[in-house]
Amino acid sequence: MNILIVHAHPELKSFTSALKSEAVEVLRGLGHQVEISDLYASDFVATASASDFADRTNPEYLVYALEQRNAVARHTLSADIEREIERVKQCDLLILTFPLFWFSMPAILKGWIDRVFVSGVFYGGRRIYDQGGMVGKKALVCTTLGGREHMVTEGGIHGDLKGMLRPLLQGTLGYAGFEVLEPFFAYHVPYVEQSARQKMLEDWKALLLNIDSRATLAMPSLADYDETLAPRAKLVG
Amino acid sequence: MNILIVHAHPELKSFTSALKSEAVEVLRGLGHQVEISDLYASDFVATASASDFADRTNPEYLVYALEQRNAVARHTLSADIEREIERVKQCDLLILTFPLFWFSMPAILKGWIDRVFVSGVFYGGRRIYDQGGMVGKKALVCTTLGGREHMVTEGGIHGDLKGMLRPLLQGTLGYAGFEVLEPFFAYHVPYVEQSARQKMLEDWKALLLNIDSRATLAMPSLADYDETLAPRAKLVG
Repeated sequence: MNILIVHAHPELKSFTSALKSEAVEVLRGLGHQVEISDLYASDFVATASASDFADRTNPEYLVYALEQRNAVARHTLSADIEREIERVKQCDLLILTFPLFWFSMPAILKGWIDRVFVSGVFYGGRRIYDQGGMVGKKALVCTTLGGREHMVTEGGIHGDLKGMLRPLLQGTLGYAGFEVLEPFFAYHVPYVEQSARQKMLEDWKALLLNIDSRATLAMPSLADYDETLAPRAKLVG
Repeated sequence: MNILIVHAHPELKSFTSALKSEAVEVLRGLGHQVEISDLYASDFVATASASDFADRTNPEYLVYALEQRNAVARHTLSADIEREIERVKQCDLLILTFPLFWFSMPAILKGWIDRVFVSGVFYGGRRIYDQGGMVGKKALVCTTLGGREHMVTEGGIHGDLKGMLRPLLQGTLGYAGFEVLEPFFAYHVPYVEQSARQKMLEDWKALLLNIDSRATLAMPSLADYDETLAPRAKLVG
């Protein structure tokens, strides 16, 4: 497989970075090609803006998704975005490794999505979910957090973490057509002993060694929705 | 009231910007003080990084939240962050106006939260929700999107939009102690006629004129959780 790891942690020696390095080692050991987009190391631009387009269709009024679509067709996207799009296109499996910031991605990773998941390639009109641009590829989210598991479950104080990540898991990765694997969460990281972190690294390694059997998240199927994306009436009985 | 509007849209003439301008006019007309943080106009730095701290406690290993806490105490946060913290501290009502990017905030606004909602001021330890640093202030989210309402409701193709925004509504604003008002959503904006946009502006104006009676979202109360933030057993009968 071709694998792309997109990594977003500001500290090189962090546990999140250790999870990323472990993935590189294990996956290369299995014979896979592994590319890494280390967003902090490359000082990736987080903010989607007019300057992402060398040659705008409408210089008077910015509709970001429309300019994406045109810039893809005319190859006038900024070079950093072009490079990342190519990396995603080449991969069979996309892995995102990041610490949870405010129950979602650090802004630098959100910006990678805002800028790289361009209209016309990743999605467009009804080309979403099982009709999305990335159909045939898998995606895996690996997140570290300070909270304990009981705080981020259904009925816990903050509610279910997978639900909190729905904008990413379903609204972004699933939407673009990726088959989304069950995410990996490392809880309470800054507060646990080294042995507990070692155990989490081993769990992560075991997951990667058995990635083919990792469960996937259910996503909508376009066949169940009409041309306005309203649910089709179901025949009963 | 002192009101802070944090605005994140790359196009000055966008409908989202019109909603922001309408809010400024209506709220000033009511006699309120209104400050605006226009993140695109001020080229706000989105990425939380080591360079946010002039004088690190631990230059060898970055724990962002710990450095936030120390920098607040020593007044060594970068000037843009200090300014935004002061603006939030001064306000009674915080309004966020932004277009939905991938079912959440544009990265520039996520970065405003990552960098400005500092540990030790907005939250800390068990100082969250009704014990959070921003208790006594209100927050209102105003979001524009391309999708139609039926696509982002319970049972719709993408699921409930308020649920998608839970990382912001509960996990950020509620977590920090804000009383979170029912959000305002403007649907299908790029595709509707001018008259429909005018109607949405009027709905927004009516909301603002009656902001005191806007419903609020339920949030956890710390009294219901023990010292590990696990739910306390409830006495029944």
